Amino acid sequence: MEDIASLGRVRVVLSRTSHPGNIGGAARAMKTMGLGRLVLVSPRRFPHDDAIARATGAEDLLVNASVVESLAQALEGCVLVAAVTARRRELSTPARWASEGARELIAATGQGEVALVFGNETSGLSNDEVSLAHMPVMIPANPDFSSLNLASAVQILCYELRLAAADIGAPPPVAGEGVPAPHEEVERLVAHFERAAVASGFLDPAVPKRLIPRLRRLFARAHIEREEVAILRGMLSAFEQPPGKVD
Amino acid sequence: MEDIASLGRVRVVLSRTSHPGNIGGAARAMKTMGLGRLVLVSPRRFPHDDAIARATGAEDLLVNASVVESLAQALEGCVLVAAVTARRRELSTPARWASEGARELIAATGQGEVALVFGNETSGLSNDEVSLAHMPVMIPANPDFSSLNLASAVQILCYELRLAAADIGAPPPVAGEGVPAPHEEVERLVAHFERAAVASGFLDPAVPKRLIPRLRRLFARAHIEREEVAILRGMLSAFEQPPGKVD
Repeated sequence: MEDIASLGRVRVVLSRTSHPGNIGGAARAMKTMGLGRLVLVSPRRFPHDDAIARATGAEDLLVNASVVESLAQALEGCVLVAAVTARRRELSTPARWASEGARELIAATGQGEVALVFGNETSGLSNDEVSLAHMPVMIPANPDFSSLNLASAVQILCYELRLAAADIGAPPPVAGEGVPAPHEEVERLVAHFERAAVASGFLDPAVPKRLIPRLRRLFARAHIEREEVAILRGMLSAFEQPPGKVD
Repeated sequence: MEDIASLGRVRVVLSRTSHPGNIGGAARAMKTMGLGRLVLVSPRRFPHDDAIARATGAEDLLVNASVVESLAQALEGCVLVAAVTARRRELSTPARWASEGARELIAATGQGEVALVFGNETSGLSNDEVSLAHMPVMIPANPDFSSLNLASAVQILCYELRLAAADIGAPPPVAGEGVPAPHEEVERLVAHFERAAVASGFLDPAVPKRLIPRLRRLFARAHIEREEVAILRGMLSAFEQPPGKVD
């Protein structure tokens, strides 16, 4: 049903949604802008009649929605992930406004699938959830009342995605430019760093401090590439061997 | 409550709305974007609990809403009127896209009040209603499914009005956001990686390959920060110690 190809490579991920009506409203919002791929992370109630009622014409997106248990699962295979957030975070990379974030996502569809993540209606996205994304995206809003309805926030971002996709399309990847590492490879790299840091005595697992979020943030900001992940993991494996025993 | 003065001169006019829930949703959408003046033309049911339920925090707009009997009354005193319409009309002036229409409305607030008119959920605006406006405004949408929820359409137009009214600039920087590492610190980090990679046997100094340039490129792309350099160097130092000898 997508009328613009790049929009078919955008997943809209709703994490821990409380009200099924908002899931239906989000599906309708997506479809009006030509998006079709809805992923639900641990929705409180789904499927549900309220979702169907609010979808009014976009029930196909509900039928085809993926339901998964963790945000990490929802993001598997994605080369660029944006987290929609209403407030500033201490440990995050610089936020983009909606229009700029949408342009970056559409540009990245030339290299693979991308995702746009929305949090719970009341609590938003947790810091852990935001840390799985490459960039926070914010909707400009009234500072005294910035609480958009979830489906409305989805509507604005999908609108911006449509503008971005229709305007600039997806540029072909630059020749020789690296292949971005998919989400799960970056996670394995972070886990490997953690293992090696603990084994070396650098990191006390009982007092983990902020090491792991900091590494994740660094790699997200760099849009780390597959080959770089492979290099760093090779190096970590070498570091894990007792010195002098390398052959 | 308006945080941007020109937005206080924009009326949002909802004509013959069927569902009071949509009136509440529209009020909330308006308030999130800093608009406050809601005018209702012959709403089917208003006031209504469904309106209050969907307003969630924007009840003040419902309390202050004007309720009138005709669109002409709603538009009294306006110097520019835009009609939001989903389809092309034979007899209308050329349509503007949402962003352009919003810019024209905001520009006209220098001369007086302006209005943005939305029709009934099912039938839209009548030709008579459209003829009272200076310009039709359309939201770019999926040609196969262009039926936006009323509150969602209000959300997008109010968002475009806010963008037009505010020079929003870049999102303000996050407090405590990292300090970029100066060149020489990055070079010392790269040198440290090289030393550790050689010591571990991962890198043969006689056949250095592309390891070092790749690391340098990764850190440059990430605009690596001072604190991250310190973390990575601490970790490398730990890796360089014989296992079990960490104290």
